[in-house]
Amino acid sequence: MAVTAESVVDLCRRARAASHDLPTVPGEVKDEALRRTADLLRERTPEILAANLTDLERGREDNLPASLVDRLSLDATRVEAMAVGVEAVIALPDPVGEVRQERTLPNRIHLVQVSVPIGVVAVFYEARPNVTIDAAALCVKSGNAVLLRGSSSASASNAVLGGIVREAVAAVGMPEGTVEVVGGGDRAELAELAGQREYVDLIIPRGGEGLKKALEEVAKVPVLYAASGNCHVYVDADADLDMGRAIAFNSKVQRPSVCNSAETLLVHRDVAAEFLPQALAELAEAGVELVGDDATRAAAGATEVGAATEEDWDTEYHALKLAVKVVESLDEAIDHVNRHGSGHSEAIVTESQEAGNAFTRAVDTACVYVNASIRFSDGFEFGMGAEIGTSTQKLHARGPIGLRELTSTKYVLHGSGQVRG
Amino acid sequence: MAVTAESVVDLCRRARAASHDLPTVPGEVKDEALRRTADLLRERTPEILAANLTDLERGREDNLPASLVDRLSLDATRVEAMAVGVEAVIALPDPVGEVRQERTLPNRIHLVQVSVPIGVVAVFYEARPNVTIDAAALCVKSGNAVLLRGSSSASASNAVLGGIVREAVAAVGMPEGTVEVVGGGDRAELAELAGQREYVDLIIPRGGEGLKKALEEVAKVPVLYAASGNCHVYVDADADLDMGRAIAFNSKVQRPSVCNSAETLLVHRDVAAEFLPQALAELAEAGVELVGDDATRAAAGATEVGAATEEDWDTEYHALKLAVKVVESLDEAIDHVNRHGSGHSEAIVTESQEAGNAFTRAVDTACVYVNASIRFSDGFEFGMGAEIGTSTQKLHARGPIGLRELTSTKYVLHGSGQVRG
Repeated sequence: MAVTAESVVDLCRRARAASHDLPTVPGEVKDEALRRTADLLRERTPEILAANLTDLERGREDNLPASLVDRLSLDATRVEAMAVGVEAVIALPDPVGEVRQERTLPNRIHLVQVSVPIGVVAVFYEARPNVTIDAAALCVKSGNAVLLRGSSSASASNAVLGGIVREAVAAVGMPEGTVEVVGGGDRAELAELAGQREYVDLIIPRGGEGLKKALEEVAKVPVLYAASGNCHVYVDADADLDMGRAIAFNSKVQRPSVCNSAETLLVHRDVAAEFLPQALAELAEAGVELVGDDATRAAAGATEVGAATEEDWDTEYHALKLAVKVVESLDEAIDHVNRHGSGHSEAIVTESQEAGNAFTRAVDTACVYVNASIRFSDGFEFGMGAEIGTSTQKLHARGPIGLRELTSTKYVLHGSGQVRG
Repeated sequence: MAVTAESVVDLCRRARAASHDLPTVPGEVKDEALRRTADLLRERTPEILAANLTDLERGREDNLPASLVDRLSLDATRVEAMAVGVEAVIALPDPVGEVRQERTLPNRIHLVQVSVPIGVVAVFYEARPNVTIDAAALCVKSGNAVLLRGSSSASASNAVLGGIVREAVAAVGMPEGTVEVVGGGDRAELAELAGQREYVDLIIPRGGEGLKKALEEVAKVPVLYAASGNCHVYVDADADLDMGRAIAFNSKVQRPSVCNSAETLLVHRDVAAEFLPQALAELAEAGVELVGDDATRAAAGATEVGAATEEDWDTEYHALKLAVKVVESLDEAIDHVNRHGSGHSEAIVTESQEAGNAFTRAVDTACVYVNASIRFSDGFEFGMGAEIGTSTQKLHARGPIGLRELTSTKYVLHGSGQVRG
């Protein structure tokens, strides 16, 4: 399914043309396209699974790592989950036409700031084929034309899934270029797509550091990085230590492969001796490999804790491994988080309102928690509905990227002949 | 005042360090820094004017164009206007700590989305030294560290003005790197500053196409272009023609050098014969050079109208020149605007609510007017207070860039021990 260099521009042009008509497509029509998408996903499950089998077989031939093959593979349950995900997007309010500000100016001009689609959004993603459906559904609902560029390892699955959305969109009369599937080819194709400033308004990459680095080099189009995270849990001197153990454990163990799992645990020295032995024992029992500074290792009790290096504070393990450090003060904890964190999700466990406020104010991050697991950083959990990833950037959108974050705005002003003096 | 390549990075580092402390500076302290800035501007007027004289003399020696020398030159009235501008910023509410969303999630975690500073903002600007004060005031108020890079032609003036804000900021105990003046040197310096992704969060260029093109080539830091505009006034078949003439005239003539003046007038063919003769005569009498398509020239009556070329529809004259075109329909008007407009400000004059709604919905632009002059596109006029320019981009901020647009957000979540199941 690789496309030639020429056709990347053709796809971009069609998407741009579609983006001129999409802002005025009524919400009911967009929802009907999504309803047909959900129906087609269920009807065509055998076809989807057959295409997926092709990808899986090629993956095995190419000796893809088992974890990648797992992320690539679909079954009837996963397809049904995609259809349910599309239905969840249908249930959300139309993000286009939302009034953000409204006032009458002293000169009696009436001003409304209203939400509009961004235009053409390109989503770059890796193995998981369900992103094809998630991203397409969010873009259709928000009136954006979408260019879907999955990985070549999932090209057969993505072609069928993208084709289903294209069929649904065509059936309700939405423009042809609304959903375009880009082959998922090599780095030259990525560079070409990332340079189409005339046709593409935004690139959202969902993937690892490799994809991010590659884009940083070549992107001329604005990019909203749905980044991974180096996240911390800090157990304060005034923490409820049982709560601290539960939050640290959940933040590390509940799903270690995702971006909002904890990579470093910070503990105030006043509670280290009381907190660490049981907390570390529980983590070790769950299979977590532990490394720590000297103070941590001294207070660890029976649990084995390796020596942490400077590099550990900057490492996103995304695995059952945790770095642990004893800090002298709340300020040191804040400083450590701001120096080493990636600005995704950070937590303090404390009964002190003052410490909680100091932490939430000073820590520079998309999401900051007092007395809760950082694993809640998610569009669904935040009540925003589906998301396309989590932005750790400060511009345009910070935190979960949901429907609202896929819109821009327009000022609409109604007068009665006013001119400027 | 040129700085060496090495010191650009030093200034950036100091700004980044300041940006860690600025989010927690109370509003009263930031306002006190601005109050001292206004006071110092008045006290030091002679010193400011002496520095400005140095720039002006060098400008004359270097044979700067008269229009540039005019934009460069300060007098007591212009310095007083700067002080008044700073006081207007003081009067605005603190944009930091504003609650954008607030709700309690089903798991009883309390979520607040609160506004925070962006971090380090670099403002690139051309001759006018007052931008030094405007940009610094907006960034101080919004808790951002600011790197001010004016043009080398204004380096003496900018050094004194920037020094005044630095002194005021230091006097209230705000961090040293809050305001940094970059020399205003060559393109290599521009490229170096535009590549400091680690230290700079956003670049806002205020200037012409040359600056924009230069930045597009080299910027690795996100850029919010405060762009110029190719703006249209469309007089519909259902227009009040007196209103149409007044709005077209004001949009072109009131201040032709600015970005929200009209460059093309579109007229529906049904009213061309009645509308054009008087409208064009009034414009010509005000010194406006006119070019038009054949239908316009045929309907122009006694007024001389040159032949417009395809290039005219894409040209931002920023001068007393106007292109005029007769269109067959509202749809052709919308299509012309979307094809040739730069997405800044567009107007329709019509008594038809249907036509007004169709135009405002379909035209892809930051600001769209029904029955009012496009010259109102301005932060002050919109009730947003001072602005740093007008964004024609769709990401982060579209339209006037005021205090709110100089902020990002952070999700703050308070729990009572919740963990994810």
